[in-house]
Amino acid sequence: MKQLVADVVAGNRRAIARMMSLAESTHPSGRAALSAIYPHAGRAHVIGLTGVPGSGKSTLVQSLAVAFRSRSMRVGIVCVDPSSPFTGGAIMGDRIRMGQLAMDDGVFIRSLATRGALGGLARACLDTVDVLDAAGFDLVMIETVGVGQDEVDIAGAAHSIVVVSAPGLGDGVQAIKAGVLEIADIHVVSKCDKADAQQTITDLNAMMGLGLQGRDRMGWKVPVLATSAETGEGIAELCDVVLTHGDHLKSSGELKVRQRNIAEMRILKAAQDRLREIMEGDGRAKMESLLAQTLDRSLDPNQAAEQLIQGLRVG
Amino acid sequence: MKQLVADVVAGNRRAIARMMSLAESTHPSGRAALSAIYPHAGRAHVIGLTGVPGSGKSTLVQSLAVAFRSRSMRVGIVCVDPSSPFTGGAIMGDRIRMGQLAMDDGVFIRSLATRGALGGLARACLDTVDVLDAAGFDLVMIETVGVGQDEVDIAGAAHSIVVVSAPGLGDGVQAIKAGVLEIADIHVVSKCDKADAQQTITDLNAMMGLGLQGRDRMGWKVPVLATSAETGEGIAELCDVVLTHGDHLKSSGELKVRQRNIAEMRILKAAQDRLREIMEGDGRAKMESLLAQTLDRSLDPNQAAEQLIQGLRVG
Repeated sequence: MKQLVADVVAGNRRAIARMMSLAESTHPSGRAALSAIYPHAGRAHVIGLTGVPGSGKSTLVQSLAVAFRSRSMRVGIVCVDPSSPFTGGAIMGDRIRMGQLAMDDGVFIRSLATRGALGGLARACLDTVDVLDAAGFDLVMIETVGVGQDEVDIAGAAHSIVVVSAPGLGDGVQAIKAGVLEIADIHVVSKCDKADAQQTITDLNAMMGLGLQGRDRMGWKVPVLATSAETGEGIAELCDVVLTHGDHLKSSGELKVRQRNIAEMRILKAAQDRLREIMEGDGRAKMESLLAQTLDRSLDPNQAAEQLIQGLRVG
Repeated sequence: MKQLVADVVAGNRRAIARMMSLAESTHPSGRAALSAIYPHAGRAHVIGLTGVPGSGKSTLVQSLAVAFRSRSMRVGIVCVDPSSPFTGGAIMGDRIRMGQLAMDDGVFIRSLATRGALGGLARACLDTVDVLDAAGFDLVMIETVGVGQDEVDIAGAAHSIVVVSAPGLGDGVQAIKAGVLEIADIHVVSKCDKADAQQTITDLNAMMGLGLQGRDRMGWKVPVLATSAETGEGIAELCDVVLTHGDHLKSSGELKVRQRNIAEMRILKAAQDRLREIMEGDGRAKMESLLAQTLDRSLDPNQAAEQLIQGLRVG
């Protein structure tokens, strides 16, 4: 493991991939891997990109990666597609899609396509980010579909959150539908070469004007940017704004607040996973008896849960 | 509380609404309400209807409710819209939409639109189903968007699971996108009066032929039905199939298996909620210290979680 960590920190691609596979596993080996890598992480700027399906996130991520590369920054990308039950498919799809980037040693792309049997998708995603971080990537982009609590949690675990909307999806303000309006640090309207892009921009600006942008951001005014992967419009500007937001996070002290929130979320999720394991392992006999009582309705689920916790032998 | 339970069991609508509000609350009063109602539930046939946005679920639920009513069955409906951050809106929308049914004493409609601050949406939904069950509704339909783990969990907590697809959404097999292909007991292609409906039906049947329908169902062959809320086509047939599936669940013993799985899921979710409360309450001081160590990277999140659990005072 020591050698593997050293190889990851040195940026060895094979070691990075191997470490990611270890970290993603729900095996105890996964814990050991994170444990070994975690002290080496903590420097990367983590950017979450989210939006409804069809908003053009993937293409935008690709354009952004190319743009950041032209500024000599090393870029890690984690694509999360929890809606796909087929692991291999999404990975292959991404490899094809990201073709030109896949040849670049300054870019590392990882897809997480499975639903993570035990709700471990958010955990696996953040562990993967840590591996990229430890391997010295300056920026790590997490691309996720912002629908459902798991997905919003994943997007919310980034330092800078970019919410992507596209014109013509005909669904009103998509960011609201996806439940991600309030977490956006930067709004992007992709495909701005399309005719109805201006309407989407106007809607988002109106939303901002209504004060619906959610939490206070220490003086950061959430911008609405227009981009086009087709014409390249707005991509360089978006790069600038993302980096400016990174600086703002540092200078305002907001970065520390976010790091704290993310760490807390990770601890709580890990604790829940661990408790579930205990309950499904040693706690099994107890669980069977409680289940029988719940089925004959002498206990309700809350009462059964309470008794399960009381009887929990931890450690 | 005793009087309230008696009123719910007698079918008093005001008591039902009151009990639901109690049960949905995360207050201890919510636990007391479920506790009082739970022994009276367990008779209703619970039907989950899910599909991507735009698949016509809501209209189908409405048509089905009318059809079941014409067979003198009492119908409860729980609409779950976790993508809406606005509670009131969705409820008003449903009231308008369900207009004709809202006048019918044999129908009770409840909307759960909030994201449930603490991941409690699945719990709130199933507690609401229990209230309708205890109040003597023969059938309870849960309508949900099947995207995201929470939503799939909710759909999966029904006895019979109907997955709705619509032609012309241009997204390949929508049930795969939504992560609900494998949980379907019955596939419905809505809006079958549309030109491209046949293609959707063919795709789904091909999928079934490939053995992608997931788990064994004790000899139940997952049918693909075509419906049109416009022309009424297929609605009566769908009613028949849903009821036949209910009989199949009973006669094959599969109902007991599902009830067991649902009860187990509810106990585990309730235990997790409870543990989170404990951790965010009494465990707070411990948490602060672990968080500081995680932030300076002397502990990783898994190690912090382990220590949090060790120090947990339960009960």
